[in-house]
Amino acid sequence: MEKINVGVIGATGMVGQNYIKLLNNHPWFTVTYVSASPGSAGKTYKDAVKGRWHMDEPIPEAVSELVVGDANDVDLAKGKCDMVFSAVEVAKDKILSLEEAYAAAGFPVVSNNSAHRSTPDVPMFVPEVNWDHSELINIQRKNRNWNKGLLAVKPNCSVQSYVTPIYALINAGYPVEYIILTTLQAVSGAGFPGPGSIQLIDNVIPFIGGEEQKSEKEPLRVLGKMSDGVIVPESNLKISASCNRVPVIDGHLACVSMKFAGKKPSIAEIIEIWKNFRSEPQRLVLPSAPTPPIVYCDEPDRPQPRKDRDLGRGMAVSVGRLRPCNVFDYCFVGLSHNTVRGAAGGAILAAELLKAQGYF
Amino acid sequence: MEKINVGVIGATGMVGQNYIKLLNNHPWFTVTYVSASPGSAGKTYKDAVKGRWHMDEPIPEAVSELVVGDANDVDLAKGKCDMVFSAVEVAKDKILSLEEAYAAAGFPVVSNNSAHRSTPDVPMFVPEVNWDHSELINIQRKNRNWNKGLLAVKPNCSVQSYVTPIYALINAGYPVEYIILTTLQAVSGAGFPGPGSIQLIDNVIPFIGGEEQKSEKEPLRVLGKMSDGVIVPESNLKISASCNRVPVIDGHLACVSMKFAGKKPSIAEIIEIWKNFRSEPQRLVLPSAPTPPIVYCDEPDRPQPRKDRDLGRGMAVSVGRLRPCNVFDYCFVGLSHNTVRGAAGGAILAAELLKAQGYF
Amino acid sequence: MEKINVGVIGATGMVGQNYIKLLNNHPWFTVTYVSASPGSAGKTYKDAVKGRWHMDEPIPEAVSELVVGDANDVDLAKGKCDMVFSAVEVAKDKILSLEEAYAAAGFPVVSNNSAHRSTPDVPMFVPEVNWDHSELINIQRKNRNWNKGLLAVKPNCSVQSYVTPIYALINAGYPVEYIILTTLQAVSGAGFPGPGSIQLIDNVIPFIGGEEQKSEKEPLRVLGKMSDGVIVPESNLKISASCNRVPVIDGHLACVSMKFAGKKPSIAEIIEIWKNFRSEPQRLVLPSAPTPPIVYCDEPDRPQPRKDRDLGRGMAVSVGRLRPCNVFDYCFVGLSHNTVRGAAGGAILAAELLKAQGYF
Amino acid sequence: MEKINVGVIGATGMVGQNYIKLLNNHPWFTVTYVSASPGSAGKTYKDAVKGRWHMDEPIPEAVSELVVGDANDVDLAKGKCDMVFSAVEVAKDKILSLEEAYAAAGFPVVSNNSAHRSTPDVPMFVPEVNWDHSELINIQRKNRNWNKGLLAVKPNCSVQSYVTPIYALINAGYPVEYIILTTLQAVSGAGFPGPGSIQLIDNVIPFIGGEEQKSEKEPLRVLGKMSDGVIVPESNLKISASCNRVPVIDGHLACVSMKFAGKKPSIAEIIEIWKNFRSEPQRLVLPSAPTPPIVYCDEPDRPQPRKDRDLGRGMAVSVGRLRPCNVFDYCFVGLSHNTVRGAAGGAILAAELLKAQGYF
Repeated sequence: MEKINVGVIGATGMVGQNYIKLLNNHPWFTVTYVSASPGSAGKTYKDAVKGRWHMDEPIPEAVSELVVGDANDVDLAKGKCDMVFSAVEVAKDKILSLEEAYAAAGFPVVSNNSAHRSTPDVPMFVPEVNWDHSELINIQRKNRNWNKGLLAVKPNCSVQSYVTPIYALINAGYPVEYIILTTLQAVSGAGFPGPGSIQLIDNVIPFIGGEEQKSEKEPLRVLGKMSDGVIVPESNLKISASCNRVPVIDGHLACVSMKFAGKKPSIAEIIEIWKNFRSEPQRLVLPSAPTPPIVYCDEPDRPQPRKDRDLGRGMAVSVGRLRPCNVFDYCFVGLSHNTVRGAAGGAILAAELLKAQGYF
Repeated sequence: MEKINVGVIGATGMVGQNYIKLLNNHPWFTVTYVSASPGSAGKTYKDAVKGRWHMDEPIPEAVSELVVGDANDVDLAKGKCDMVFSAVEVAKDKILSLEEAYAAAGFPVVSNNSAHRSTPDVPMFVPEVNWDHSELINIQRKNRNWNKGLLAVKPNCSVQSYVTPIYALINAGYPVEYIILTTLQAVSGAGFPGPGSIQLIDNVIPFIGGEEQKSEKEPLRVLGKMSDGVIVPESNLKISASCNRVPVIDGHLACVSMKFAGKKPSIAEIIEIWKNFRSEPQRLVLPSAPTPPIVYCDEPDRPQPRKDRDLGRGMAVSVGRLRPCNVFDYCFVGLSHNTVRGAAGGAILAAELLKAQGYF
Repeated sequence: MEKINVGVIGATGMVGQNYIKLLNNHPWFTVTYVSASPGSAGKTYKDAVKGRWHMDEPIPEAVSELVVGDANDVDLAKGKCDMVFSAVEVAKDKILSLEEAYAAAGFPVVSNNSAHRSTPDVPMFVPEVNWDHSELINIQRKNRNWNKGLLAVKPNCSVQSYVTPIYALINAGYPVEYIILTTLQAVSGAGFPGPGSIQLIDNVIPFIGGEEQKSEKEPLRVLGKMSDGVIVPESNLKISASCNRVPVIDGHLACVSMKFAGKKPSIAEIIEIWKNFRSEPQRLVLPSAPTPPIVYCDEPDRPQPRKDRDLGRGMAVSVGRLRPCNVFDYCFVGLSHNTVRGAAGGAILAAELLKAQGYF
Repeated sequence: MEKINVGVIGATGMVGQNYIKLLNNHPWFTVTYVSASPGSAGKTYKDAVKGRWHMDEPIPEAVSELVVGDANDVDLAKGKCDMVFSAVEVAKDKILSLEEAYAAAGFPVVSNNSAHRSTPDVPMFVPEVNWDHSELINIQRKNRNWNKGLLAVKPNCSVQSYVTPIYALINAGYPVEYIILTTLQAVSGAGFPGPGSIQLIDNVIPFIGGEEQKSEKEPLRVLGKMSDGVIVPESNLKISASCNRVPVIDGHLACVSMKFAGKKPSIAEIIEIWKNFRSEPQRLVLPSAPTPPIVYCDEPDRPQPRKDRDLGRGMAVSVGRLRPCNVFDYCFVGLSHNTVRGAAGGAILAAELLKAQGYF
C-alpha cells in the first residue's frame, strides 16, 4: 500500500501537536500539510509552535520545516494532502462549516472536535464498538452530494474508559441498564495551560463544564444501531456522571457502578469477556489498534493513571477492581489515556478504520 | 463550670497530636495527662514527639512538658485526669481490651479507633445525627457494671461528608433509599507517612483498604434507632462506595448520587433543608459544634478541599453542586475535614455532647 | 487613635484581594473605598470579584457591598478615603503616572508594584531594615510640591527571605560581601492563574522572567544609606540569584551561600544575632510587625514552606540550616510568605511605619 | 560477540528493579541470575516482587520466572552468571565485605552502592569523565590477588547533572576553581516509598541527609588523575552544595554558579564545547552511551525535569540557561535522570566500559 498524504488542520494547538507526534513514522499516513490560524500562516511549523511545543519528544523533523497554511483556506490544502485530521480551535459554528467545507472539497475529514458529534449523518467512532457506523458515510455522501469527501468524529475523552468495557458486556449478551460513574480527569484534558497550579496543588475541582452531559449522552449514540440510514441511540441504558479534575498529567479514571438489564454474569465471566474481547480494529490489524483493547489488572489497587495509561501505546483501556456493588450489580475502575485514545490517537484509529473499509 | 482534666492515650501518633492541637485552649477540657507506648514513657511529651510533630502549630506549651505515661498501665492515669481520649495505634484486640480497661477503671473513654465501632453497647456518634444514642451508655454501664466509666466512638472519616446531609433530608421527612458514591480522600487520612510521594505525584490510587466497607456500613448504624436498649441499624438504605486516594493534604470529598424512598423534595427544598439544619450540638451550644453544621456552596465548582475544608473551624460539612441525577434522583458533592471533623475533632464533639448530657 | 479610612486601588486582582483580606479588622485602617478597571466600576465589590475571589476566607462583609470606583479617576477617591494602597495591574508607564496622580491629589500611596522601585525619591521599604528611608518622603514632597501626598513602595517578594537576615548580620557589625543564592518560589507569586498544572505536576521550572535581576539589585537599594537626600545603594555587596518555580502554593524559599567582607562571626553568634534581632517596627509595636521578625528553626530540615510560612502571621522570616560553606563562609536556608510579607502584608507594614512616624 | 550472563545482587529493591528494566533486551548482557535477602530466596522473581514492582513496564518475561537466590551465598551465583551488578540494601559493612566476596570469587562486580566509593583501589566511574580510572583495576587485582574478579562503583545521583559539563570545560582547557550549587532532587532518589505525600504536597524539603557531602566530595575523586597507581583527587576545585527534595518523580536539577581558575571562555565558547563534547564511551560506541552526552537547551526555561530527563534514553545530561553570574563567572542549570544515569544506567555504562576495555 502506498502511504497516504495527510494534513492536520489546527496543527499548532495541543491536539494538533498530539496528531503530529502520533503520526510520526505512521505506517499508512505521512503528514505533508499543516495549517492553523492566519497568524501562524506562512511560518514554518517549527517557528509557529516556538515556545509552545508541549510534547515530550522534539518536533518530527519532516513536519518541523513544513510551511503552515491558513486553515480557513480550503484550496490551500488541495494537492498537498489527500485527507485531513481536524483539531481547529474556533467557535462551534465555524468548526461546523469549516469541516464541511473540507469534506465538500473532496477531503476525508476525521475530527477531534465536538461540533459534529450530534450531526445525524456524521458517525462518531469508538472503532472497537461501532465500526459499522461507517455505513453512515454512504448516507452522508448521498445527502450532501459528496464524492470523495467524508466527515467522521470521535467522542469525548471522558467516555473512553468505560464505553468499550460496557460494550464488551453488551456484545456478550449482557445488556446494561444503569451506570452511575465518577471520573477523576487529568489536566491535559483541559488543553494548555488548563487549570492553574494554584487551583490544583493540595486540591481537586469537582466540576468540569459540559463534561457530565457529554459523558452521559455520547455513549448512547456510540452504542446505537444503524437503522434505515440513521443511528438509533441506545435507549435502554441510562448514565449518570460526576466529573472531577485532579492533579494528574494524563489519564482519565472512572469509578463505575453498573446494573444489568437482565441476568447478570459472574465476576469471573466478566473478566473473561474483557480479557478475550477483540473487535474489528484488531481483526483488521489497524496500525493503532491495541491488542488486547481491554487490559484487566489483577492487582487490587490498579489501574492507576501514571502506571497504566500507556498500555497498548496509550490506546488500550485498562480496567480493574471488579467487585459486587452494594446497590447495583458491580463496581469497577476504568482508565484510558485522554490525549492518546481520548483525542488524536482515537481519531487516527477512526481514520485507519475508514481507510481499511475502503472509504478513502 | 470547672474545667475537666483529660488524658490522651496514644498521644504521640498523628491522631494523638491532632487531639493535643485541638484541645489547646479548649473551654471545657484541659490536657493534664498523655500516654503512649512504653518506648516513649518517661520522656517529656516534647521529647517523645521530637522530629515527628506533624501539626502546623508548635506543641502547646503546657503539654510540651508533660511526662508521657505508659498507655498500657491504666493505674498511671488515675488521679492525673478525669476522662480520656483514645488514639492508641495497636492491634484491634489490644485496643478492645485496653479501652475497656480504662472505662472499667472509671474513665469516660471517647475513641477515634475503629475497634469498638461494632460493639453493640458502644455508641458511635455523629453528634448532629444520633445524639440520642447516648442512651446506650446506660445499657453499657449496666451490662458491664461500670459506674463512672463509659465507652463511645466516632465513625470513619470517609462517612462524614455525606452522613449529615443525608440525615438532614431523612429528618425532614424524605427517607433515602439508595446512595452510590465515590470518595476522593486526602493523604492525611492514612496517617504518617502514608502513601509515598512516588505513589501520588501525577497519580491517584483507586483503592484504600477496608474503606469502602466502612463507608457503606457505618452510616447505617449511625442512622439507626434505639429500640429496647439496642441500636437497630437503618435497614431501608443501601450504600455503595468507591474510595480513591488523591494528592490532597486534608479534606475528603464525596460525589454522591441518591434516590429517595418515597416522594422527592425539589432542589430548592433540599438546599433550604440543608441551610436551615440545626441539631442537638447546636442547641446545646457545644464548644466544637459548627453553626451552621452544613454549609451549602452556591458556586458551580465548590466545595473544594483546600478552599472549604476549614469551614466551621474544620467541623462543618460543605455541600454543593446539587443537581438532577440521570439515574437516581439527585447528585451532590460533599466535603469534610478528615483530621478535624473526621478524627480528633469529631471525638471531642462527642465528648462535649456526653458531658452536656450529664454522662460525666 | 481614630481609625484611618483607606482605599485599595486595583482591588479586584490577586494582590488587591490580599489587601482586602489582610486589612480586615485592622486596628488602624478601615477599607472604605475600592477601585478597579472601568469594567468593574459601578458594581459592588462582591459582584466585581464573583467567580474570581481566590482568598481562603470569604469577602469581609463591609467591603463586599462597597461600590467599585474607576481606578483611573482620582477624584472619585476624594472624600472616600484618606490614603490608598495600590495594586493596579496595568502597564508600567500607566502605573508610574497613576500612582503619582493619587499622591499629587493628597493621598499617601503605598504600592506593591515594581514601577516606582527605582524612582530616586521614592523609598522602597523593608521596614525592619530601612525604616529611616522615610526621610526621603520629605525630599519627595519638596521635589514634587506635594503636601499631604506621598509615594512609597516595597521590594519584590523574592528578596524577603534573605534581606532581613543579611541586614541583621551587617547591623551587628559583620558586613557581607558576596551572596550566591537559589530560590524555590511558590506559584502564588505569579498571580492568577499563574503557571498551569500541566507545567508543574512532576516538574519544576528553572526560570522566572525578570526575577533574578530584581533579586540581585533591589536588596542593594534597601540596604543603602540616606546621604544628602538620596539613597546610596550598598556597593560592597554582590548578589547572584537563580530563581525557580516549584509546585508550592505560598512561601518562597532561598538557599543562600554568603561570604563576609571582614571577620566572620561563629555559627552560634549568627544564630544569637538572628534570634535577638528586633528593629524599629517592633519598637514601634506596629500592628503587623512580627515579633520576633526572624525565627531560627533548630530542626535539621526546616524551614519548609507549608510548615513555616505562617510564622508571625506570615510576616516573619524563618531561617535554618546555618552551616559552613565549602566555598564561602556559611550556607543557610531562608523562607518568607510571598503573598503576605512579600506583597500586601509588606505594604501594610510600610504604611503602618509611615503612619507611626507621622508622615500621614 | 557472545552475550554475557549477568546477575543482579539485591534485585528486588528499587535500584535492583531498575537494573532488571534497563538490562531488558540489552545487546551485550542477559540477566540469568537474581538474588536478594534470604526472605525472598527460593521464590520466582515475579513472586518476590509481587505488590512492590515499581517500574512503569511489566517485569521482563525471562527474568520473571528466575528463582531468586540468597544474595549472601556467593557460591549460588557460580555457574549462573559471569558478572554481577550490585544493588544490595544492607549496612555499609556488610556491603563492603559482600561485594568483595563476589569479586574474590571471580565475578566482576559493578555496584550502585556508596560503600566502596572511597576505597582507594576501587574506581568510581562517570565513564565520559574518567574512563581511564579503569587502570586501577590492575592495581586492585594485584592488591587483592584477584584474577577475574574486579570491583567498580559509580558516584551519587546528585553529581551527574554537573560533573560532566564541568569536566567538558576543564578538558577544553578551562579549569574551574569554585562551584556553588543548589539541587532540586526527585523523590525516586530516596527509594521506595521515600518521603510521604504528606511531606511534599504544597511543600519542598531543604535537606537530604548526607547528600551535600557526597555532592561536594565525590566529583573531586571522579575528576582526579591516576598517579602511581592511585587516584589523586582534583585539589584545585572547591564545591559547595545545598540539596533540596522537591515533588518530582524523576530528574535531579542543579542551579550552578562557577568560577574559572584562569581565563574564562565566552558563553558562545562554552555552549560550543558542550555541544561538541564526545568522550570514550561515544568513541567505543557503548550501547548505553548517549550521543551527544551533553544536550544544550536553547529555550530560556529549560532543562525541566519532566520534559528533559529522558534525553538520550535518560543517559544524557541536559544543560541550559548559561548566563553571566553576578558574583562568579557564569550560572547554568543542569539536569540528569537520577534513576537511569544516576543509578542503574550509570552502572551499566560502567560495566560496558570495562567490558569494552577488556577487563572481563
